[in-house]
Amino acid sequence: MATGQQRDSTATPVARVFRGEREVEAIDAADRGLAYGDGVFETLRAHRGDAPWWDAHWARLRRGARALGLPVPEEAQVRDVACALLRGEDAVLKVLLTRGVGGRGYAPPHAAVPTWVVSRHPLPPAPPEAGLRVRWCHTRLAIQPGLAGLKHCNRLEQVLARAEAGMPGTDAPSSDERPSDEGLMLSTAGDVISATSANLFVLRDGQWWTPPVTGCGVAGICRAWVLAHAPAGEAVMAPRDVEAADAVFLCNAVRGILPVARLATRCWARHPRLEALRAQFAADVPAFALETP
Amino acid sequence: MATGQQRDSTATPVARVFRGEREVEAIDAADRGLAYGDGVFETLRAHRGDAPWWDAHWARLRRGARALGLPVPEEAQVRDVACALLRGEDAVLKVLLTRGVGGRGYAPPHAAVPTWVVSRHPLPPAPPEAGLRVRWCHTRLAIQPGLAGLKHCNRLEQVLARAEAGMPGTDAPSSDERPSDEGLMLSTAGDVISATSANLFVLRDGQWWTPPVTGCGVAGICRAWVLAHAPAGEAVMAPRDVEAADAVFLCNAVRGILPVARLATRCWARHPRLEALRAQFAADVPAFALETP
Repeated sequence: MATGQQRDSTATPVARVFRGEREVEAIDAADRGLAYGDGVFETLRAHRGDAPWWDAHWARLRRGARALGLPVPEEAQVRDVACALLRGEDAVLKVLLTRGVGGRGYAPPHAAVPTWVVSRHPLPPAPPEAGLRVRWCHTRLAIQPGLAGLKHCNRLEQVLARAEAGMPGTDAPSSDERPSDEGLMLSTAGDVISATSANLFVLRDGQWWTPPVTGCGVAGICRAWVLAHAPAGEAVMAPRDVEAADAVFLCNAVRGILPVARLATRCWARHPRLEALRAQFAADVPAFALETP
Repeated sequence: MATGQQRDSTATPVARVFRGEREVEAIDAADRGLAYGDGVFETLRAHRGDAPWWDAHWARLRRGARALGLPVPEEAQVRDVACALLRGEDAVLKVLLTRGVGGRGYAPPHAAVPTWVVSRHPLPPAPPEAGLRVRWCHTRLAIQPGLAGLKHCNRLEQVLARAEAGMPGTDAPSSDERPSDEGLMLSTAGDVISATSANLFVLRDGQWWTPPVTGCGVAGICRAWVLAHAPAGEAVMAPRDVEAADAVFLCNAVRGILPVARLATRCWARHPRLEALRAQFAADVPAFALETP
């Protein structure tokens, strides 16, 4: 059971569940998050008990809730619960918000009381020193402008793609069948979009480029940091554009900026522009400084 | 709380929750169904304690589970639980299957223990005697062949479209702003696919036609009955094809065959071919006989 407060362990996930303002014992079997993925979530990196990007995560959660018509709990209460779970330590924090308990059927209840869950998780292992090995996934991202960019809970495409990425590679030489660290996903139109749980940037012509997320994909918080702090822009790209790039990295709000060392048969050495960006990032957001080898 | 056995009421939903073979008190906050919609479900109409289409529903659940790589519980145990909940009565039965509790992150656990929930719900109200009033929804269905046809738990598109269908119409005359009974959805390519929770058939040139569900939509159990028992086939169709049809009906495994009386400004009187089909259906599947006015 992940539910309940377990105050003595930092390694075990701990979750607290609320319906509206009231803490409850467990998720109701009729919760619409369970039935339909009718919710949104945020995953944050907490550093010494604080979440440096809280405001950006909360703003995205509110955007997603507005798009889906979900009621939103009081930010102060959610943040208090998060702080209590963190106890001043480093961890990954997840906030999940659903439309709450509903009858059978897709129609949203008129007076929904949201369910929200705040959970604390161990930090992920440090990324491989040599850089990530990634592969192309067969599972594609469907184009749905009405949900694109949001961190909603309909994530079967990512689940299926991540399962592929963790399987021995079929597009790599036969001597090299270790599971990949991540998988890159195309849209059903064939454009490169992102990794399963990270955004993608490529260096080309001296500038960083990332695919737009207006048709599918998630508008990542770390992606927004890069767009705001580096010479970077959005560009539609094909797989060959990624493979021809001078450098490639993935990024998300839990693991920061992760250099890619290998994609299918293409290998990249560390690029000075990428090292400079990582140094700038670690200086600006100390929560991620530990991830820099 | 919907969890727990409430043996005295037929109107209140009742749910029983299992992890693998073991009955548990509640849904874990770390269930992947809640986190990612990582599951499949079936909704059945039970008649005098029996589910006449159980085999078809179970087969579809297994197909969906195979596509997603979900472990499947023993059919006999699920059916026993369902029978116990039904107590020989008429009701709607829902079976939900998720990948179970998982860590944070999309990667499916290697040894997942499935969560499954069997719940009993009241029968829906009888459909309007005069036929359904339906409308076109703005929310479209994304094209994802990897998930099309399956009754998986990523249903935000249907939730958003159903919310539209329940709002006062904007495509109807201003004197006629009652909420619609259902909404029709197009794919992002502009083809008609289905209603939010029912398949669609139109009568044209003396034959029934329904859109294919290879790009999006659900391969409905009642849809399969119609395709097997009526002169019917699959055809790609545009909105104008529906509006020009001689008769239109929606169908699903809970409500059976539902004549459409109105779509936007188009009205249909009862068509003898549709009445004949409904009579054949009620004779073949007595669970639905009560729905025939």
